[in-house]
Amino acid sequence: MNHKAAGALHWIIPDGYIPEKSSGDLTSHESICVLNCSSDDAQLAITIYFEDRDPMEDLFAIVPGRRTKHIRTSLLEKNGASIPVGVPYAIEVRSDIPVIVQYSRLDATQAENALMSVMAYPL
Amino acid sequence: MNHKAAGALHWIIPDGYIPEKSSGDLTSHESICVLNCSSDDAQLAITIYFEDRDPMEDLFAIVPGRRTKHIRTSLLEKNGASIPVGVPYAIEVRSDIPVIVQYSRLDATQAENALMSVMAYPL
Amino acid sequence: MNHKAAGALHWIIPDGYIPEKSSGDLTSHESICVLNCSSDDAQLAITIYFEDRDPMEDLFAIVPGRRTKHIRTSLLEKNGASIPVGVPYAIEVRSDIPVIVQYSRLDATQAENALMSVMAYPL
Amino acid sequence: MNHKAAGALHWIIPDGYIPEKSSGDLTSHESICVLNCSSDDAQLAITIYFEDRDPMEDLFAIVPGRRTKHIRTSLLEKNGASIPVGVPYAIEVRSDIPVIVQYSRLDATQAENALMSVMAYPL
Repeated sequence: MNHKAAGALHWIIPDGYIPEKSSGDLTSHESICVLNCSSDDAQLAITIYFEDRDPMEDLFAIVPGRRTKHIRTSLLEKNGASIPVGVPYAIEVRSDIPVIVQYSRLDATQAENALMSVMAYPL
Repeated sequence: MNHKAAGALHWIIPDGYIPEKSSGDLTSHESICVLNCSSDDAQLAITIYFEDRDPMEDLFAIVPGRRTKHIRTSLLEKNGASIPVGVPYAIEVRSDIPVIVQYSRLDATQAENALMSVMAYPL
Repeated sequence: MNHKAAGALHWIIPDGYIPEKSSGDLTSHESICVLNCSSDDAQLAITIYFEDRDPMEDLFAIVPGRRTKHIRTSLLEKNGASIPVGVPYAIEVRSDIPVIVQYSRLDATQAENALMSVMAYPL
Repeated sequence: MNHKAAGALHWIIPDGYIPEKSSGDLTSHESICVLNCSSDDAQLAITIYFEDRDPMEDLFAIVPGRRTKHIRTSLLEKNGASIPVGVPYAIEVRSDIPVIVQYSRLDATQAENALMSVMAYPL
């Protein structure tokens, strides 16, 4: 059975931030959570925008067909450079086929955790 | 009086995760919160997508007419299998009549709790 | 100057819950946060849906023109009855003119707080 | 290369609140997180609505082209007046070109933090 793609090709998350510190059992992190409902792989191109410097463009990721991928932003990289910690930024996700994107952050700066999540904004 | 259905037939939540641990007074859990405004029952068919294996399809639930149901994901099952804990996954909810779907997670990994919630994405 | 109304007439929040306990400095509570951009008052009629009993209908509130109102759900009442604590429920907000609705919960069950917030779903 | 603007001109956040207290390592704050995908600057005009007094209008901010800006609400001001702390309010953001807006709050009233975030509602 061939499953159709669903969602949108282009998603925005204005509030990105990788906390500098972790305490307690868990590690502070953010995830870009993508669902690909189709039978085909989705090729993602991610752009990172900053407050005071030019964007990092074309960080790539793949979400296989009929799979989800919860992408840790700290693991994205381009030419050996990754997203700096402790700096406000924003995220743009483009996909070659429709997908659905949610963003979540676990802040473990304190021993007790804080969580936030939003559905990304589809363009 | 006969109340009409409202919302959408098809909803997506890319960031599902059942925490492995609980501490303190409350238990870590997620809920798929569904409102059925109509006078008729809503029949739900839920699909769970993973990062590294085929989806679990057709987990069923019913939301009676003029009722809400806050479905604990840990209680969903099919042929005796339930959603594994500590594993990233995504959720697709289909309903035979329009409903409205929100997703919330209480993480009690630490003694102090963290909460997150999103409106599901309607397709 | 006469300001126009903006938003929608009908909003849904599937995940309502008033925590039973509070610890520490703050009190557990939920708020239905409404913005009325227009110069005229907005008359709200709120319906509360449950898992196991008929809805409570027509809880009323007013948001004056060019004002916001952050309505504590625990203060809503009808014929002396209010929303029970510790029970899952859902919220429907109807307004006679367009408004914008957001829902937030502060859970102070533990001494340290947890927060969640969603934009309500417009019908 | 000339990049096009994306998003909407007009965004609403009904639940604004600047916590009065901070404990622990971090300071309670809110941010209006704006992404400007275009090559041109975006000029923002922000209106703050209250429960019991007239709105504060025309608080201005600029988001340069191809940049994000995470605007601390406590730093917005007009004629030397800023948004009062400990008071429920609502936020309206107008931009001269399309942008995307998200709102996040870190509550550090307790030593352990709480986070919430929503995508603003586009009009």
